[in-house]
Amino acid sequence: MKFRNFKLVGYVIYGRGSFNQLDEILSPNRKGDHPMVFLVDHFFEGKELVNRIPVRGNDQVVFVDVTYEPKTTYVDSLASKFKNEFGTVSGVIGIGGGSAMDLAKAVSLMMTNPGSSADYQGWDLVKVPGVYKAGIPTLSGTGAEVSRTTVLTGPTRKLGMNSDFTPFDQIVLDPELTANAPVNQRFYTGMDCYIHCIESLQGTYLNEFSRSYGEKALELCRNVFVQQDEWAANSDDQLMMASYAGGMSIAYSQVGVAHAVSYGLSYLLGTKHGIGNCIVFDKLEEYYPEGVKEFRLMVNKNKIDIPQHITKGLAEDDFNKMIDVSLGMKPLWENALGKDWEKKITREKLRQLYGTL
Amino acid sequence: MKFRNFKLVGYVIYGRGSFNQLDEILSPNRKGDHPMVFLVDHFFEGKELVNRIPVRGNDQVVFVDVTYEPKTTYVDSLASKFKNEFGTVSGVIGIGGGSAMDLAKAVSLMMTNPGSSADYQGWDLVKVPGVYKAGIPTLSGTGAEVSRTTVLTGPTRKLGMNSDFTPFDQIVLDPELTANAPVNQRFYTGMDCYIHCIESLQGTYLNEFSRSYGEKALELCRNVFVQQDEWAANSDDQLMMASYAGGMSIAYSQVGVAHAVSYGLSYLLGTKHGIGNCIVFDKLEEYYPEGVKEFRLMVNKNKIDIPQHITKGLAEDDFNKMIDVSLGMKPLWENALGKDWEKKITREKLRQLYGTL
Repeated sequence: MKFRNFKLVGYVIYGRGSFNQLDEILSPNRKGDHPMVFLVDHFFEGKELVNRIPVRGNDQVVFVDVTYEPKTTYVDSLASKFKNEFGTVSGVIGIGGGSAMDLAKAVSLMMTNPGSSADYQGWDLVKVPGVYKAGIPTLSGTGAEVSRTTVLTGPTRKLGMNSDFTPFDQIVLDPELTANAPVNQRFYTGMDCYIHCIESLQGTYLNEFSRSYGEKALELCRNVFVQQDEWAANSDDQLMMASYAGGMSIAYSQVGVAHAVSYGLSYLLGTKHGIGNCIVFDKLEEYYPEGVKEFRLMVNKNKIDIPQHITKGLAEDDFNKMIDVSLGMKPLWENALGKDWEKKITREKLRQLYGTL
Repeated sequence: MKFRNFKLVGYVIYGRGSFNQLDEILSPNRKGDHPMVFLVDHFFEGKELVNRIPVRGNDQVVFVDVTYEPKTTYVDSLASKFKNEFGTVSGVIGIGGGSAMDLAKAVSLMMTNPGSSADYQGWDLVKVPGVYKAGIPTLSGTGAEVSRTTVLTGPTRKLGMNSDFTPFDQIVLDPELTANAPVNQRFYTGMDCYIHCIESLQGTYLNEFSRSYGEKALELCRNVFVQQDEWAANSDDQLMMASYAGGMSIAYSQVGVAHAVSYGLSYLLGTKHGIGNCIVFDKLEEYYPEGVKEFRLMVNKNKIDIPQHITKGLAEDDFNKMIDVSLGMKPLWENALGKDWEKKITREKLRQLYGTL
């Protein structure tokens, strides 16, 4: 058996108010007159946080549209723009949820790697380090802050630039930044972590490294969404660590049925990752009976709306596309159902499941 | 308030048998004809593990004497020897417990930094990266695999080379390597982790980052030493993760009374860190009542000998030296007892405590 040699992020700073140290952190990474580029979730346009970004010289603050998950065309156009304007940049800083962070990772890599980001969708295709990159989550649960991928929708597929050059050089984990997230969004993104943990801990791939991170992440999610009746003083702190630990647990684990099915939704309908997983997981009693029970408890307790009937009225052709995408996620199915997964999940069964969403 | 920006190790590989991937891992880090130097705990001399080290070309396997914790003179002499013989080396690989790993980190740094390692005992005095370095623990509990220090006994003090250049570029966590550790040694080293967690979780410095790692490490220690009656199939796996998590929890926490007192023992008597902490912790009911109760349960359950009366017959002058060293560990005392610690721990009180050891 071969184990993955897992590349970690370079530096981590954690603490309430640690965002205030950003100027000092970036300073030694500035290269001459080349700007730092801050890719900021458009949610923050006009908000207080923007005034706290340590802009110096010709630094750029770019509000990025994350209505949909990042596309390779968007990555390429941002990278081209910065190359045309500045030759190169000192670094790319992603401030936001998983989409803004993934975008920052991808743009950093495309400042130095030739061609289109679509050429690098896959595993270990990136051969040259990108420019300095930092990730600053303002939503907890995606794990994008520690992952070695950046999920992109390309011309032919949704797939990440998975490589040892992908992880951030620096992450800033400041729980104060997540305090004003909309309640539904905060829940969906938190569930990205929760569902991931349920899938990986019940999966057939797993070792003690990933188990210990996954268990801790799950415990922290439960502290936040199950054990307490209101959002507590330390809930943002705990959920931020849940996200980090959940992301680390990826090293030797894999997700399962919810992710495999929700990829189909996101491919066809553009459903975002967090909410898509919630929509699917809600219907997975057969596969994760205890997890789904607890999930519904959390939904009710936190007064969250899970969209229903989103596949109603789709053509058979559309269902087939989703089924194709989903069945293509072989490692996820194998992790969830074992080596003989193909006997256990048929097109008919998947068609039925998609029909309930 | 200022938060530490914590440098992580570069790569981590975890898994039973992952040591077999060492050749492949080192290969891209070889620089021309310059050898890899393996600093191996002398415990392994003549043992099977030595034959599995992927020696190539003029690679060196050096058995290091870790009867006592590493001295700056030992670090300097090893670095000089390699510089004289090879100009430089491709990398330094530490295989063993905390001493062998700390030695490897220090020798790596002294291949490129001028002067003596004693010049760098302190915080952020190292200004130049060392050569490539990797750590491979064969004992679990020290946390040396992830720390940003290397504890050295110098001409005037016992203090680490704390710096961002100190963490390993690579760690290989293979639980099979710890399987044959002597039972007492395994316990003492495991308790290094347990005691650290008790001290940091009860301390006044702490945030959610360190709390979540510390809680997980403590839980894993309890799984191994409290919950089960025999060393189980996955005990080595769990204790290795406990050590890793315990080491990570250091980022935003501090140790306490046991460490502060045991530093005195180790300075005067050369008592090694793991066993020294056990000897001291056993007498700390006043400070950690529940932890000490559980510690004694673990000692009995695992049939471990904790040395007694090791300070018997020492001169008053010796006690004073230990008290001086211990009271010098200001942050440890402050973490344990609060800002007004000096009112709570007097020389008399410490003298009495040392007398019971």
